[in-house]
Amino acid sequence: MNALNVAEYTQTLGLQAKVASASMARATPATKNKALKALARLLRENTAALALDNARDLERATAAGLSAPMVDRLKLTPKVLETCAEGCEQLAAMPDIMGEVLGMKQQPSGIRVGQMRVPIGVFGMIFESRPNVTIEAASLSIKSGNACILRGGSEAIESNKALARLVEQALTEAGLPAHAVQLVQTTDREAVGQLIAMPEYVDVIIPRGGKGLIERISREAKVPVIKHLDGNCHTYVDDPCDLDLAIKVTDNAKTQKYSPCNASESLLVARGVAQAFLPRIGAVFAQKGVEMRCDAEALAILAAVPGANLVEATEQDWSEEYLAPIISVKVVAGVDEAIAHINRYSSHHTEAILTRDHVHAQQFLREVDSASVMVNTSTRFADGFEYGLGAEIGISTDKFHARGPVGIEGLTSLKWIVLGEGEIRT
Amino acid sequence: MNALNVAEYTQTLGLQAKVASASMARATPATKNKALKALARLLRENTAALALDNARDLERATAAGLSAPMVDRLKLTPKVLETCAEGCEQLAAMPDIMGEVLGMKQQPSGIRVGQMRVPIGVFGMIFESRPNVTIEAASLSIKSGNACILRGGSEAIESNKALARLVEQALTEAGLPAHAVQLVQTTDREAVGQLIAMPEYVDVIIPRGGKGLIERISREAKVPVIKHLDGNCHTYVDDPCDLDLAIKVTDNAKTQKYSPCNASESLLVARGVAQAFLPRIGAVFAQKGVEMRCDAEALAILAAVPGANLVEATEQDWSEEYLAPIISVKVVAGVDEAIAHINRYSSHHTEAILTRDHVHAQQFLREVDSASVMVNTSTRFADGFEYGLGAEIGISTDKFHARGPVGIEGLTSLKWIVLGEGEIRT
Repeated sequence: MNALNVAEYTQTLGLQAKVASASMARATPATKNKALKALARLLRENTAALALDNARDLERATAAGLSAPMVDRLKLTPKVLETCAEGCEQLAAMPDIMGEVLGMKQQPSGIRVGQMRVPIGVFGMIFESRPNVTIEAASLSIKSGNACILRGGSEAIESNKALARLVEQALTEAGLPAHAVQLVQTTDREAVGQLIAMPEYVDVIIPRGGKGLIERISREAKVPVIKHLDGNCHTYVDDPCDLDLAIKVTDNAKTQKYSPCNASESLLVARGVAQAFLPRIGAVFAQKGVEMRCDAEALAILAAVPGANLVEATEQDWSEEYLAPIISVKVVAGVDEAIAHINRYSSHHTEAILTRDHVHAQQFLREVDSASVMVNTSTRFADGFEYGLGAEIGISTDKFHARGPVGIEGLTSLKWIVLGEGEIRT
Repeated sequence: MNALNVAEYTQTLGLQAKVASASMARATPATKNKALKALARLLRENTAALALDNARDLERATAAGLSAPMVDRLKLTPKVLETCAEGCEQLAAMPDIMGEVLGMKQQPSGIRVGQMRVPIGVFGMIFESRPNVTIEAASLSIKSGNACILRGGSEAIESNKALARLVEQALTEAGLPAHAVQLVQTTDREAVGQLIAMPEYVDVIIPRGGKGLIERISREAKVPVIKHLDGNCHTYVDDPCDLDLAIKVTDNAKTQKYSPCNASESLLVARGVAQAFLPRIGAVFAQKGVEMRCDAEALAILAAVPGANLVEATEQDWSEEYLAPIISVKVVAGVDEAIAHINRYSSHHTEAILTRDHVHAQQFLREVDSASVMVNTSTRFADGFEYGLGAEIGISTDKFHARGPVGIEGLTSLKWIVLGEGEIRT
């Protein structure tokens, strides 16, 4: 396609999505759940056929010299497909929140005023590699009564096309419009530029992928973006605290997995507990091969830990998202300095305080300006499923509309409804 | 100032606002209310002094040949100032919603997860003419624990500066940072371009003014915008309905005031009641000098009304926001056609159905895709005060974040809070 054709094509997708979104908003919970269950069934029935389409992507990726982990992420194994199918069934089993009416109250004029939860309309999702995101996004779109336009990575195009055909079949089986979920069929990058600049058709864009992709989309989008940039999460060990709890939770926050955005990248320790706490956590990190990038005070205390991998921290370390067995470590005077440090260097994703002090806990909850603020637990819990959202379309590090893990509610809007009995304005 | 200086100046305002916003977020309800009451007192004490500053703007406006209504809107009369003072006192008397915790529930892992309402941070407000908006925005900013940067119209610069000095005095009296409310002191248009492109300092922009201003800001902003474009509101008279109620409400929706965005601009009438309803409302409109732009069917029925000012409607009329004694009139088959027409031509602001039919009412509430959807009452009620919000910073015709009348809640965000007892992720 040339640029003109891509623009026309994307406009067509937009118009079709807009038209489909009206039917989706009217669809009953039973109909939407029927489509989700059909999709689960089709994924299981077509596991072998999907493997063939997937193999074409895998061959191309291997030939193109993609790294083994990258090729791994492309794989639609029977296990991945079964997880997708179960996800659809779980969504089908969830209550439907559309039409929910909130806060209906009578006003002095006599009118009763409340808010009704309705689908937001059309969302666009732009994602890289993992083709199973096609099913995650499609199923969330169906459950939430929205229409969506999906743009996957070019390396997974054959897999995505095959999955999108199954989604279309499931929609049709349930009597829902086939255009409710559309995959951008061209790998032309121009299509992304178009998709993020059609406010007349697309109500919100959700990018999932590397920082470069997300920065580009945020910069160029002409529609709202639910975006997630860095996860520079902090764990702050307060004075007083339960040291055993602090060791267990800090260890989990850093080492349970290194790659997720909610892993802690920075450890702050109150001066009053530093002598007792740092050597113990230092020994844990030393044993697990976690490099510690320390301020002078932490360095002095940790120097005595056998086998500790210690490095002097630079200013840059306080802002870093390592996604690796590395953590920055700093001794602070107490909760005030911890909060000030976090609000200065954090990416506003997730921060935790480990404390026995009620006043410190309350202050930390109120004053830390991040999407998730925790007391006495692991930052790794910042996740839509762990928060009981039932599903997660993304995590937002913005404050507008949706903040933190975004579930189905983030794909809705609240419109005002007003019931009267002939009242007039005077 | 040259462009470079304007950029530096605006950056300084942004940084100062950001710093002040942290103190504002921590301020107690008592402190914020003290500032609001001080502001009310200062407005009353300085009524005479403000008249002198205001006179400079009025002279300049008259000399520049501004129209009488434009000059009128600039006036800071004792009555306008008293209304501002009362607004501040009303805000002070309202409950404080910051820190409110919503939906705290224990999850299977043991952690308890909820959401805390916190100020959004810094908002920028860009407005034209009426200097009293300075006080409205400042008082909402104080109550909501945000910082704000205000950019008023150049024609009201002396009045705005004088009001901003009183706001600063009130903040200081209460022990709040003087930079919590800052007025852009230059009338250079470049300052607007800067203000809407500082995502590092400004969390949301709220423009209030003509469509040209709002379109420019929406197009160029690099931060979220709470914007209100057209108000092409519809009243749909259903079959069956209470005709007396329908006459009273339709009359109110169109003629109580012609200029507000929530006045009805389009009247849809179900065929089954058109013969009974249209001549009666036509007589009311004829008596009040309201021009009716009709489709052929309405035209035929209304032709018999003595003194009716009838015009054949063009396609353009269905999308028009007249803000004048003009209304478009169309006969439709019933509720389905009414909804389809509204969703096609409306600006998604406010629509009302006047009906006795429960099923039609429910369908209209669910399917009309507008910020406010009403049954048996006047579209003129679409207003923050009438909805019980206590104050209104603007009306949004978008679906993202805030929809319809925006009160203090629209200036907040919900962050997740998580309480644990040492839980770890496994």
